[in-house]
Amino acid sequence: MKLVSFEYQGRPGWGIAEEQGLRDMSAALPGIASLKALLAADALDAAREAAASAPSLAMDAVTLLPVIPDPSKIICCGLNYDEHRIESNNPERGHPTLFVRFADSQAAHGARVEHPPETTKLDYEAELAVVIGHGGRRIARDAAWSHVAGYACYNDISVRDWQKHSSQMTPGKNFPTTGSFGPWLVTRDEIDDLASLAIRSRLNGKVMQDAHLGDMIFDIPQLIEYISTFTPLSPGDVILTGTPGGVGLRRDPPVFMKPGDRIEVEIEKIGLLANPIV
Amino acid sequence: MKLVSFEYQGRPGWGIAEEQGLRDMSAALPGIASLKALLAADALDAAREAAASAPSLAMDAVTLLPVIPDPSKIICCGLNYDEHRIESNNPERGHPTLFVRFADSQAAHGARVEHPPETTKLDYEAELAVVIGHGGRRIARDAAWSHVAGYACYNDISVRDWQKHSSQMTPGKNFPTTGSFGPWLVTRDEIDDLASLAIRSRLNGKVMQDAHLGDMIFDIPQLIEYISTFTPLSPGDVILTGTPGGVGLRRDPPVFMKPGDRIEVEIEKIGLLANPIV
Repeated sequence: MKLVSFEYQGRPGWGIAEEQGLRDMSAALPGIASLKALLAADALDAAREAAASAPSLAMDAVTLLPVIPDPSKIICCGLNYDEHRIESNNPERGHPTLFVRFADSQAAHGARVEHPPETTKLDYEAELAVVIGHGGRRIARDAAWSHVAGYACYNDISVRDWQKHSSQMTPGKNFPTTGSFGPWLVTRDEIDDLASLAIRSRLNGKVMQDAHLGDMIFDIPQLIEYISTFTPLSPGDVILTGTPGGVGLRRDPPVFMKPGDRIEVEIEKIGLLANPIV
Repeated sequence: MKLVSFEYQGRPGWGIAEEQGLRDMSAALPGIASLKALLAADALDAAREAAASAPSLAMDAVTLLPVIPDPSKIICCGLNYDEHRIESNNPERGHPTLFVRFADSQAAHGARVEHPPETTKLDYEAELAVVIGHGGRRIARDAAWSHVAGYACYNDISVRDWQKHSSQMTPGKNFPTTGSFGPWLVTRDEIDDLASLAIRSRLNGKVMQDAHLGDMIFDIPQLIEYISTFTPLSPGDVILTGTPGGVGLRRDPPVFMKPGDRIEVEIEKIGLLANPIV
């Protein structure tokens, strides 16, 4: 299933994307008002069964929202592909490098990403987002996959100068609209060869990053085990798994995004996430 | 006013601490169910007026909660006192060093702080917490004080080895019960000489940190201006303003907290926050 969050006629809802349009599931499963609520209710099967009888909507009748508009936690892994770690002049580490993005920094597929006036160093970062289904604490890596609801594309857009004001990345990773998340959540059952999938970013059509999900240094079970040791995970929480080499900051000369640009993140079998910079 | 969050007979509430006991304000101001809601409603004056007619409770009849149990953002400034910056071997920076604590890592005054089995390096950090009243974005430092609701004591308890697993402090700052916040919020109008106030921590009665709030490198208006540039602030959000020198990690030999210890943070005119380590 491909699950989406959207706004339709002024109200938030969620649905299932199909070949043609989508099913308005917030109308079909009363009491489940959001994707986060669906995951908390462990009701993916109920959604699958109810889909055929749910009202249809045209995709362009709705305004997409970030896949999970209001995760309680967005935990981001930096430096999780060797090519990017090396281009960024960082040593090998025995543990993931983790920072936090606030939910109100997110943007939907297609939404306008605002170029902050405080920077000239706005950069893209194509990433796989992992969405937690079953929550938990101290989840062993062997059990980790059963806690994953599915996957989405994420653009962890970074304000490089603010990211490097101090040792901590927080300021450069939280400007509003810089966390693009979409277009949909692909449920885990649909993907059986995650490591082989290509992840790419394209700026104005030109490929800037091109790698495979299997190139991650810390894989998804390792990330879940490590993160859930120090903080509980809940349904709808998001783990960003890091970006491959090729970011704009590390190009020669550097390439930063400007108003008028179009940035895309594409992950095979998972989706295509595109945003205009304004 | 001294504002507290508590649980009484199984339900959450909030109140005003007085010389003797407290006033149960959640009963007196219907529709305002929490301190965060009080701040969002900009209703401090209404609370002051309604206090005399609110039911009284004995302090020991309630279980205190963290002052704001569920802030939407807890933004923490590291290395904001020179003595601590120097003992930690960090260079001077032109900008604050900011990381994030999740709300579910918090603990109340008097609550048991759980020593995680994953570490032997549990350390205290006495800090002043600033609680936001009026939210906003791009708040100029000249206007910043009007966005402050008040102050509280905070113990930003740190798992030092996890803090230093990578460049990012997140894992060492988010183990459950390590963010002790209390006992109350002292409203801004009660404090007219913030810089002169002493801040101290005591471990089993022995003074470990001893400084003045005026020793901060980035003061409160500077922090609010910088933070609100990259992320909106909302009522109830918490800014931790950094810890003075004397942390356990930097002592010779190092001093870490163990089960059975009692750790206190005291700030003159603001409060005394104490927790047992278990």
